[in-house]
Amino acid sequence: MGLFTRDIKTMNDLFVHQLRDMYYAEQQLVKALPKMADKASEPQLKQGFISHLKETEEHVRRLEQVFKMHGVNVKGIDCPAIDGIIEEADDTAGEVENKDVLDAALINAAQAAEHYEIARYGTLVSWAKQLGRNDCASVLQKTLEEEKAADQKLTSIASSKVNLRAAS
Amino acid sequence: MGLFTRDIKTMNDLFVHQLRDMYYAEQQLVKALPKMADKASEPQLKQGFISHLKETEEHVRRLEQVFKMHGVNVKGIDCPAIDGIIEEADDTAGEVENKDVLDAALINAAQAAEHYEIARYGTLVSWAKQLGRNDCASVLQKTLEEEKAADQKLTSIASSKVNLRAAS
Repeated sequence: MGLFTRDIKTMNDLFVHQLRDMYYAEQQLVKALPKMADKASEPQLKQGFISHLKETEEHVRRLEQVFKMHGVNVKGIDCPAIDGIIEEADDTAGEVENKDVLDAALINAAQAAEHYEIARYGTLVSWAKQLGRNDCASVLQKTLEEEKAADQKLTSIASSKVNLRAAS
Repeated sequence: MGLFTRDIKTMNDLFVHQLRDMYYAEQQLVKALPKMADKASEPQLKQGFISHLKETEEHVRRLEQVFKMHGVNVKGIDCPAIDGIIEEADDTAGEVENKDVLDAALINAAQAAEHYEIARYGTLVSWAKQLGRNDCASVLQKTLEEEKAADQKLTSIASSKVNLRAAS
């Protein structure tokens, strides 16, 4: 995408642009999640990050599948939003020593990433349907459901375990 | 917050840190929303951005109220996440000429910001309760409800009007 040209002319271009943004974002999360698992102390949280890493690797493969179904090159583009979310997660985690408080900070960081993905996949599903690509929509919908489930699981770990310990 | 010290020692420090992050984020959105309203063509979308600007100004005031209730300085800190979300919105909008496709891109951008706020306010509400600050939690909860309503309104404008036109 050029700085001096307007390269997104149609909704299809916008759809492909957003797919490529998510392809980059998911790859960044594949790199970030093992570090988050390492930092987590609560076993259920650590295990949650490891399980979500496996799901995230599958999300990368699903995006590759959607690119192919849609007949466009498998390619990522810069995604300043996920870079900012990960940068903020690293900055904040770097400030925390207490392991229970760090667990709370890690959940907060992970939920920001989950919500970013929920917003983007929600849009991608509706754009795919509008473009008559119900096949792509149904693949993207699977990922959307997994992101929502991951977010709910984090809320449950926070409220049943981590927040209580962090505040004590 | 220093680069070489670990300044977040307690959950209360983490809560105040996140309040300050949101104080900066809401102020950035107060600057971004009028530009989004200017760019929008669909009247319901343009009006939605203008109404949400008024709500966002109120969210800034509510955060000031929470700082005071909690006895800490009213202060913002850098929030790379919202900077990234806004940068990505500007980059993408700058690529789009067609006004219907631009409306779809603007909704996508606004929903990324809404979901960022939903994640953060959701966490702030539960942290406030855990810290015994139900008074702060109830103020933050009002903002959380408005962010969720704004997100739903954007989904409704997208599905009832914008996406259909953008894909045609």
